Amino acid sequence: MRMRKKPWAKDMIASRTDCVISEPEKMAGHWSQFSKSGEVRVEIGSGKGDYWINMAHLYPEAAFIAIEKNTDCAAISLKKCLDNTSDNMKLIVDDASKIETWFNENEIDVIHLNFSDPWPKKGHTKRRLTYRSFLDSYKRILKPDGKIVMKTDNMKLFEYSLVSFSNSDWYLREVSVDYRRDEHPEDVITEYESNFMALGQPIYRAVWQLTKEEEN
Amino acid sequence: MRMRKKPWAKDMIASRTDCVISEPEKMAGHWSQFSKSGEVRVEIGSGKGDYWINMAHLYPEAAFIAIEKNTDCAAISLKKCLDNTSDNMKLIVDDASKIETWFNENEIDVIHLNFSDPWPKKGHTKRRLTYRSFLDSYKRILKPDGKIVMKTDNMKLFEYSLVSFSNSDWYLREVSVDYRRDEHPEDVITEYESNFMALGQPIYRAVWQLTKEEEN
Repeated sequence: MRMRKKPWAKDMIASRTDCVISEPEKMAGHWSQFSKSGEVRVEIGSGKGDYWINMAHLYPEAAFIAIEKNTDCAAISLKKCLDNTSDNMKLIVDDASKIETWFNENEIDVIHLNFSDPWPKKGHTKRRLTYRSFLDSYKRILKPDGKIVMKTDNMKLFEYSLVSFSNSDWYLREVSVDYRRDEHPEDVITEYESNFMALGQPIYRAVWQLTKEEEN
Repeated sequence: MRMRKKPWAKDMIASRTDCVISEPEKMAGHWSQFSKSGEVRVEIGSGKGDYWINMAHLYPEAAFIAIEKNTDCAAISLKKCLDNTSDNMKLIVDDASKIETWFNENEIDVIHLNFSDPWPKKGHTKRRLTYRSFLDSYKRILKPDGKIVMKTDNMKLFEYSLVSFSNSDWYLREVSVDYRRDEHPEDVITEYESNFMALGQPIYRAVWQLTKEEEN
């Protein structure tokens, strides 16, 4: 379902100087100023913002930086938090392919990929957020013990991603083929996610790091 | 469901000198003599033998070596192929923990793990056929481009295995969280597997190698 164009989107984005970062390249190396604990989390493809807003409130000590290129989606997420934006919430309205210009090396603790566009056609493989060129970018901007956390309802994107990460020398640290079979109060369930759960469809989730598990 | 003891099992195994290898350590380095193409495939935990028998007939050029420690199961599989054993089918009735004494380095092309015992208790982790000590054994006896193919209905074993292989530096080459959503005439469906399919439960499958995908 295509969303109806929001004529108010541009104005909303321009007016929200409290949380929209209009020149993110100037922030490179300085994102931790929005974090009390020093932890910096980034969500790529934050859509209508449910995860971003709720996670930022659940983890008030961490900075939570959302990236969303679709101006209408970004504006909707800003509208949602008109009355409850906190200092640790920042939003970049731009294409994530530029992510290396916005963050320095070793700057991010966690990258969240939630229900990313699966780009199912073979010719669009390179657009998937888990294509190897993206993984290489993530590698540079993540801290050495940083991690990538992915959730999706799309089994083909999930399968593709598991192989893609492995082939780029990431270690799979956690994986679930039905994440919501157990309670996870530490992780926000968005409306989008709960719709899938209501249909009885599994939520797939994986966590990757560049370091492997300690032997014991 | 525990199987009723088979009093005829020992005799059946002893009599089937055409395909039971009673001293497998003497065969180390010589398994390819049972293969027309040179390909050697091994199934660890062959159970009642459906996969072993049908795959050996589907791939008559390859040697297909089954390993099953349960004498009753092994005997049942031998009974099933009384009239249709072919020269490429061999069976070892013993514990797979000895596998490195039976095969030389670089001797095996494919190891199949089908619906292995999940050993769900934490204290039994080391018994899982995808525990790291097993993976290290497989590494030694597989050819450099050899692979491990796993199928299971057990999501927790599947999840455990994906992490365990990753942590032991294997590359995930293929993965499916619902293998039977597509037709796979190249792979035998056993009675056990079809029971899960009839219940609408997904079959999980993964393929690992020690080499990564070529960049293209």
